[in-house]
Amino acid sequence: MQKRSLSDLPLPCPVARSLDVFGEWWSLLIVRDAFRGARRFEDFRALGAADNILSARLRKLVDEGIFEKRAVSATSKHYEYVLTRKGRDLMVVLAAIRTWGERWTKGKDATRLSHGSAGHSVSVKAWCAECDMAISVDDITVQRPLAGQAATGGRG
Amino acid sequence: MQKRSLSDLPLPCPVARSLDVFGEWWSLLIVRDAFRGARRFEDFRALGAADNILSARLRKLVDEGIFEKRAVSATSKHYEYVLTRKGRDLMVVLAAIRTWGERWTKGKDATRLSHGSAGHSVSVKAWCAECDMAISVDDITVQRPLAGQAATGGRG
Repeated sequence: MQKRSLSDLPLPCPVARSLDVFGEWWSLLIVRDAFRGARRFEDFRALGAADNILSARLRKLVDEGIFEKRAVSATSKHYEYVLTRKGRDLMVVLAAIRTWGERWTKGKDATRLSHGSAGHSVSVKAWCAECDMAISVDDITVQRPLAGQAATGGRG
Repeated sequence: MQKRSLSDLPLPCPVARSLDVFGEWWSLLIVRDAFRGARRFEDFRALGAADNILSARLRKLVDEGIFEKRAVSATSKHYEYVLTRKGRDLMVVLAAIRTWGERWTKGKDATRLSHGSAGHSVSVKAWCAECDMAISVDDITVQRPLAGQAATGGRG
């Protein structure tokens, strides 16, 4: 299915651009499995996606710089997919989704995120850089410029 | 397009279940626009999705409890879509995606998240409950039980 690029929408933002990178069905679960240790195509098959979909998603994630595709050795025809810094930074996105999912969905959990050797549990919090502290989502204001400003403004 | 439920995959987790709720193309941008102040169907049209898609996504998000659909008044035929607590909790997911997108994509930005009246900037951090502090994503370990455990284990 050909999808319209979300980056070209009338009101651009980093969320739309990010979803252009990893917002397709399966993509974030492929990244999740990479954090779980999957590296080869065969490893990612455990996810349950059809091979043609899996192949297309991995190619796109390589093109976007989320994975680096490396030969397993100099003489090998086998490849592995290794998360780049850009890919590893998606941990916060996955952890934010997990935090929401732990609160709002019910079911089994085959993964655990932990901090340090004692296995402390990990969640995600909104953070104010100036106050240097975690804040409640209810204290966040979303400001949207007028349509005219949107066409010329830009922070990212 | 009929999609397979991600919740039924061999290795269940809160991420897969959450993506079943809001992982379809457009859904998170609809929620983003609600945070920006969109309430009526016409408001969400500014997003640029086709009406039939927009209608299907809003219906699904109401079914999942992300939005409450309310008549504008007792006598009105007009409805508005109001984020529930479950929906407002998605702010952290959107803020995490923004934080990633601000670092890793380039382009204009028509939205700003701010903390307090002074307009402090908001980002998102991984958090350790036991240490009671923000942590680096590189200090997070992902633990995945054996397949046998996955079938019977469960935290959520």
